Amino acid sequence: MFGIDDTEFIRGDVPMTKQEIRVLTLAKSHLTADAIVADIGAGTGSITVEAALIAVRGKVFAVERKLEAIELIKRNVEKFSVANVEIIRAIAPDGLNALPELDAAIVGGTGGQLDEILSALDTKLKIGGRIVVNAVTIQNVVKTLDWFHARDWLVDACQIQVTRLRQVGQLDINQALNPVWIIAAEKIRGDDSATVV
Amino acid sequence: MFGIDDTEFIRGDVPMTKQEIRVLTLAKSHLTADAIVADIGAGTGSITVEAALIAVRGKVFAVERKLEAIELIKRNVEKFSVANVEIIRAIAPDGLNALPELDAAIVGGTGGQLDEILSALDTKLKIGGRIVVNAVTIQNVVKTLDWFHARDWLVDACQIQVTRLRQVGQLDINQALNPVWIIAAEKIRGDDSATVV
Amino acid sequence: MFGIDDTEFIRGDVPMTKQEIRVLTLAKSHLTADAIVADIGAGTGSITVEAALIAVRGKVFAVERKLEAIELIKRNVEKFSVANVEIIRAIAPDGLNALPELDAAIVGGTGGQLDEILSALDTKLKIGGRIVVNAVTIQNVVKTLDWFHARDWLVDACQIQVTRLRQVGQLDINQALNPVWIIAAEKIRGDDSATVV
Amino acid sequence: MFGIDDTEFIRGDVPMTKQEIRVLTLAKSHLTADAIVADIGAGTGSITVEAALIAVRGKVFAVERKLEAIELIKRNVEKFSVANVEIIRAIAPDGLNALPELDAAIVGGTGGQLDEILSALDTKLKIGGRIVVNAVTIQNVVKTLDWFHARDWLVDACQIQVTRLRQVGQLDINQALNPVWIIAAEKIRGDDSATVV
Repeated sequence: MFGIDDTEFIRGDVPMTKQEIRVLTLAKSHLTADAIVADIGAGTGSITVEAALIAVRGKVFAVERKLEAIELIKRNVEKFSVANVEIIRAIAPDGLNALPELDAAIVGGTGGQLDEILSALDTKLKIGGRIVVNAVTIQNVVKTLDWFHARDWLVDACQIQVTRLRQVGQLDINQALNPVWIIAAEKIRGDDSATVV
Repeated sequence: MFGIDDTEFIRGDVPMTKQEIRVLTLAKSHLTADAIVADIGAGTGSITVEAALIAVRGKVFAVERKLEAIELIKRNVEKFSVANVEIIRAIAPDGLNALPELDAAIVGGTGGQLDEILSALDTKLKIGGRIVVNAVTIQNVVKTLDWFHARDWLVDACQIQVTRLRQVGQLDINQALNPVWIIAAEKIRGDDSATVV
Repeated sequence: MFGIDDTEFIRGDVPMTKQEIRVLTLAKSHLTADAIVADIGAGTGSITVEAALIAVRGKVFAVERKLEAIELIKRNVEKFSVANVEIIRAIAPDGLNALPELDAAIVGGTGGQLDEILSALDTKLKIGGRIVVNAVTIQNVVKTLDWFHARDWLVDACQIQVTRLRQVGQLDINQALNPVWIIAAEKIRGDDSATVV
Repeated sequence: MFGIDDTEFIRGDVPMTKQEIRVLTLAKSHLTADAIVADIGAGTGSITVEAALIAVRGKVFAVERKLEAIELIKRNVEKFSVANVEIIRAIAPDGLNALPELDAAIVGGTGGQLDEILSALDTKLKIGGRIVVNAVTIQNVVKTLDWFHARDWLVDACQIQVTRLRQVGQLDINQALNPVWIIAAEKIRGDDSATVV
């Protein structure tokens, strides 16, 4: 099963990717049961956990710098009994060198190191593998698209605007969530042949 | 793997649920590997196929009235090699009586018979099961919410606005898809105790 | 000049229509310099003030039930030095009988009396006049559309989703406002010939 | 009156700013009756006409490069009987040197010369004046914001997503228009003191 409700995860004050964005991000990662996945800026671990539930015979590496968040990831991993998660405490791109070859990488937080993180992930990603970036600012959307377009990756990008309806008496009130861009890209060939502009 | 690209499905002129909506609809259906699922107004069969890939040990009943669409469902079922699909040609709610007990039902098209379809599905749905309705008009959103609220189902409703980005030269053009409402509801008790208003 | 910034208005805890919605609502009201206008559920008076600045030779009747809001309307009317405003303290549709013939009416708040308010306004509205309803729930959108469609008014309805960008360091953060529906309708003939369904 | 319906304008195959965007763009331009305004990339002239109707004692300079569009501007200027419009055929920033001191400038199309156009307009714009840019790609949003932020202009930026409702039988179908960003900025001081990064 995928599509765990937000309320199921243990949260602190760490921002959490909302369910709808989490589900779409995972779908666009094209994870298989054997996938080796990196979750960069893992936050509460909600994406890590759902990725681990899909990649049951694979492994998910959760990279996170904040101690408070790492504690939450551990607790959520335990709550959902996923054994195939390894937590790496590091400020990415630090720590990414230690990763094995990847089928997919999900980038939630970048701490301003977007290009460096994408380049580090590129060295680990299989041809045919995917990177999916969640961005909440247009500056990061543009940077991400620039990086992928410059290397001729196959890009699938969209902006998602979710508005939740909440019943209040006889009416349903609309609550807009902030828009998120999901930029998925497939690496279609190796570095040698890349046309870096 | 879930999240098949739209272009992977065989389409004719039959309208197809877009990938993002399909993925979120399935996620909010809480399908398990053993789920028995009904897909009402199955159209091209894109939701049917993805549901069948998740409910690998279960079964998906695709209910559709148009012959042209049924032909497409058959071809997509064949293309994705899913064996656990049964196609029912009927104008719902006709044909729903023949269904077994359901874990989930997905309602894409209703042909103006929303209430009748929800009532027919209710008689088949397990307690704890879910109905997920995709609506593209506010009139149907209100009708769907009314039906669920009147019976005290646990509702999770949202409007999803997807805007695709498409590279054109140095720029990425925004293409807004029409908004879709996804109304998921869980049946938390049997008919006897329902508080029908 | 029209399009006063939100921050220019004196606000208390009374909800205020946001600038973008206010501007579009006024535009879709087709106000002239001589217009006689009613603003139902005037709140802070932000629409009243801007309408009065457009209808310089006309008049704006601000109908509001809450004392706190009436106090704000008075202060905003004073701040923007508009002399052509009359404040009516009443729970609409009460108080609408006292209105003169109207060129336009803007309905912000209804206190659950939408149909009654529209019917009362209809008796005052000139043929060719317009009612513009701001709705924040789909239930009220449907009710409003039903009322207008049943009487064959000329409807121009849209949902507006505004996302504000706010600079934070090197980035611009997106802040989604809740969506609002603006339903404008023109009365194209008198009551006698109306086809009430 | 402002807020002319799209259908009132004479259109050819030239893309036209939609009513909602046009109205918001004009509102955020803070035009007065005496305003001197430039409309860059005037297209059909819909913004030019509405600006001229507001700036009744001022003047609007419509800058446009395409002959087909210039023909439409002429016809719309004639249709709405606005005498205070001057059409300049030029590929901006060419032609902007000839402009007088401006109270406001509206930038609809840039032909890839965004920075050059903003710089040319800056030399003509009064302190306290405003430039309002309509952008349909995030690349141009970022470029526009960069330009304004680098010069410490007072920025008011938003993304507007309009979804029109169109009655079809008993239902109202949602038709999403592509999102547009409206970036308004006020020049709060002269060039000398500007902090160009």
